[in-house]
Amino acid sequence: MASSQSPAASDQQTDIEPVGNQTLIIFGATGDLAARKLIPALFTLYRRGYLDESFCIVGVGRRDWDDEHLRGVMEEALGAEAVEHKRWPHFRDRLFYQKCDLADAEGFRRLHQSVTQHEADLGLGGNRTAYLSVAPSLFGPTVAGLAEGGFLADESPRPIRVVIEKPFGHDLTSARELDQELGRYLSESQIYRIDHYLGKETVQNILLFRFGNAVFEPLMNRNHVDQVQITVAEDQGMERGRGGYYDSAGALRDVLQNHVLQLLCLVAMEPPAFFRGEEIRDEKLKVLQALRPGSGDVKEWAIAGQYGAGAVNGEVARAYTEEDRVPEDSRRETFAAIEARIDNWRWAGVPFYMRTGKRMPDRVTEITVVFKHAPLNLFTTVECDGDLCEVVENKPNRLSFRIQPKEGIFLRFNTKRPGMNSLLSPAELDFTYDEVYSRKLPEAYERLLLDVMRGDMTLFTRSDELDAAWQFVQPVLDAWDNRSTKPPRYTAGSWGPPEADQMLYRSNRKWIDPQETGALSGDQLERG
Amino acid sequence: MASSQSPAASDQQTDIEPVGNQTLIIFGATGDLAARKLIPALFTLYRRGYLDESFCIVGVGRRDWDDEHLRGVMEEALGAEAVEHKRWPHFRDRLFYQKCDLADAEGFRRLHQSVTQHEADLGLGGNRTAYLSVAPSLFGPTVAGLAEGGFLADESPRPIRVVIEKPFGHDLTSARELDQELGRYLSESQIYRIDHYLGKETVQNILLFRFGNAVFEPLMNRNHVDQVQITVAEDQGMERGRGGYYDSAGALRDVLQNHVLQLLCLVAMEPPAFFRGEEIRDEKLKVLQALRPGSGDVKEWAIAGQYGAGAVNGEVARAYTEEDRVPEDSRRETFAAIEARIDNWRWAGVPFYMRTGKRMPDRVTEITVVFKHAPLNLFTTVECDGDLCEVVENKPNRLSFRIQPKEGIFLRFNTKRPGMNSLLSPAELDFTYDEVYSRKLPEAYERLLLDVMRGDMTLFTRSDELDAAWQFVQPVLDAWDNRSTKPPRYTAGSWGPPEADQMLYRSNRKWIDPQETGALSGDQLERG
Repeated sequence: MASSQSPAASDQQTDIEPVGNQTLIIFGATGDLAARKLIPALFTLYRRGYLDESFCIVGVGRRDWDDEHLRGVMEEALGAEAVEHKRWPHFRDRLFYQKCDLADAEGFRRLHQSVTQHEADLGLGGNRTAYLSVAPSLFGPTVAGLAEGGFLADESPRPIRVVIEKPFGHDLTSARELDQELGRYLSESQIYRIDHYLGKETVQNILLFRFGNAVFEPLMNRNHVDQVQITVAEDQGMERGRGGYYDSAGALRDVLQNHVLQLLCLVAMEPPAFFRGEEIRDEKLKVLQALRPGSGDVKEWAIAGQYGAGAVNGEVARAYTEEDRVPEDSRRETFAAIEARIDNWRWAGVPFYMRTGKRMPDRVTEITVVFKHAPLNLFTTVECDGDLCEVVENKPNRLSFRIQPKEGIFLRFNTKRPGMNSLLSPAELDFTYDEVYSRKLPEAYERLLLDVMRGDMTLFTRSDELDAAWQFVQPVLDAWDNRSTKPPRYTAGSWGPPEADQMLYRSNRKWIDPQETGALSGDQLERG
Repeated sequence: MASSQSPAASDQQTDIEPVGNQTLIIFGATGDLAARKLIPALFTLYRRGYLDESFCIVGVGRRDWDDEHLRGVMEEALGAEAVEHKRWPHFRDRLFYQKCDLADAEGFRRLHQSVTQHEADLGLGGNRTAYLSVAPSLFGPTVAGLAEGGFLADESPRPIRVVIEKPFGHDLTSARELDQELGRYLSESQIYRIDHYLGKETVQNILLFRFGNAVFEPLMNRNHVDQVQITVAEDQGMERGRGGYYDSAGALRDVLQNHVLQLLCLVAMEPPAFFRGEEIRDEKLKVLQALRPGSGDVKEWAIAGQYGAGAVNGEVARAYTEEDRVPEDSRRETFAAIEARIDNWRWAGVPFYMRTGKRMPDRVTEITVVFKHAPLNLFTTVECDGDLCEVVENKPNRLSFRIQPKEGIFLRFNTKRPGMNSLLSPAELDFTYDEVYSRKLPEAYERLLLDVMRGDMTLFTRSDELDAAWQFVQPVLDAWDNRSTKPPRYTAGSWGPPEADQMLYRSNRKWIDPQETGALSGDQLERG
């Protein structure tokens, strides 16, 4: 497939009105996320014309940095290509640093003065966003500090927006506590809970694909769908000391409760009346409210796993319990698979299988809708290697949304094998982004930061959604956190423990290997 | 897209049991079709193992040829590549010639003796097919001659099969006369009416695609389909003296009444109970029986056209009436477009637009199912050239079967344009044969001759289908044959006269340019 589009002639993008008059206050500006994601995303937004020249960015941290130090750190993080850009000097001049201990009310008052001064100097109107790139335990104190410093009293031109990153609580109870703590100072419309998965183009495309076409939606229901599978797999383990945090969270909290359930909402929700934040989140909430576990005990519908030693991408991988900062006797799951149902008119009876894990064969996120078989099997199906064919079971149609990598949409269908008989063989209708758009897909953080600045909450998780998601996983957390034995082992580089396969075998189904998607059209994953 | 299949290592195909014990009698063996299509197809069937070594081919003609002369003519037609094949000498030895005047009963008796002798010499059991590659006016006399010669009395191992090529009559009356004439000697199960379009892989795939998948069939009805378009376009004019025959036939008889209506049957028919000749032809018949003209007078739903001078593929093309063997005052149509309805539960209210013509911009055969718009237009649609986008009307989904050239299936859908807004842009899920199968698609004649030999009538037109097709077009023939003025002109190299466009404008529709199909995925037609 070829593209008819020439590579972008300039950096400038023209598809939206630029946002301007923005003050960004980044708490935790000395941390990894600011240098690696936030500042690069903001600079890209400015460079591409999404953000006009009227802004300032105030980094906040406990360290003894100053403006120049912060600017130097960011220059290093951005690299030569960015720093040599003609727009960098303007951006650089609008980067400031303010030391502030988050426990110190006086520090917040000084921060308020400083921010106000920068705004006055630059002619900005006090249109503020606070990005809390800090430990979750500091969300409450930071917001309290913002109140002490006077930020919450400044309601013109609009109340400050506060961005927080997961984890939003550790379980249902702590999530509700956090919610109450934030709610003491902020209204729901000020709180932007980032799930960076929702910033991905291909995730957003799920809704546009479903509701921007007439031919798929009539098929997306219990009459036509046999099952839906969602896989969010990582090949990495506990690199870069990640084991410390991970062992306190696990696969269920870290990925399934948020990313995976959000994907499930997008693939299963009803069409909204308008494509707007509140309406879309209302529909997602309805999915979560209708979510039911598979039948039986927790252990029947929720499978944990922990990786043992093995090999991933041809390299030896040690067991989870031998990883850096992970206790030797850890019972933490590094894999979670759940069978769920959605008890509504559209989906009743259709199993949704979700799984996520570390140290799996590929880094891949994929949603596959498996359709029922044709009601009458008129033909013989063969699979062929050259002219050697073997008769196989008829293959059901499958619609796959590949979120990453090699983003695309794949529709597996059956076609006539060329030849003298009426034999079916499986084939794929495929669409991949990189073959069609020369344009680079925007980074999730670029989209999400722009949305915060323009006040669009569509891609952020609402409090009631979050609560419903926690309610769904709480029985599993209870069962797993109180377990007296280790979770089932799986070999690093495999797709999880045999128990996860057995969960599907019970209904004569099996997990789809993401390597199959795109294989018929040459768009499959490249396995390291 | 890449293929995982290596090029066929050998000529041998393994997907069916070979047929054998075959006697083929080709009437008109000195003609163009025998040398260009029939003998090459038979040799390919033998070379590839579809036909085993037990056969003989007896060419019949009025000329004073002998076996060696026929063999020499065929060697020249086949070319060096075939003649040097190790299997050629065996095939060549089984090629015979018998002179026979079709008006001469004695000649047929000699032919019968000769065929019987060859069979005895080669140990064949008298399993016979007569291929009537003769003028339609000679179908009756030839069959009568077969009776005289004793061929019809030989019923062991089975009655002789007779293959005829269109035209099957010139109108409803003459078609019924021909039918009666053949019926005097032959039962319907002996008559193989070839429509070589039905031998094409991509035509056969229409049924396998529809009924071998669960996801398309629920959409193929009046609830989801807005209209169906069938285009069978040729860029050629009256080359090689074709004008003589063509001026007596025209676009309606030559292509629309047979090929186009057959395509319509395949895309519109109900699923059969079995994938077998009688059941499939029963379903096709039901479509033809339910076929109704568009509303109003014939001139409202049937548009003729005749090409004037113009340019095709960059070359000057003269007007139809200036072509070789075409009368200067000819009123014959070289273009026909028809609007029809299918009055049944599946299709009531859905217009089917069919068109065929000579001297059109491309040689292309394509069926496109245009779906209704999504019930709610949630998004803005843009079309972009690089970063320059313009807002356009929402594009309905379309499913296209490209029969030739660049055979494939294309599903136009809408996807999120990468960027900061929720904009739709049209894209294509595509599947093309040549990108997936390294294997060459079998020629239509190979498939059809094999089917005759193995007694499979699925791809041949039954008498009642033919009658129903003639019934449908007869009012148009009446109107056009009695016309006192020339049909509307169109420029050679255009898609027909403006009247054909107006027929669709009335309901706010328009013809789809086949160049659009595949354009989004780089699989579009290559225009001369």
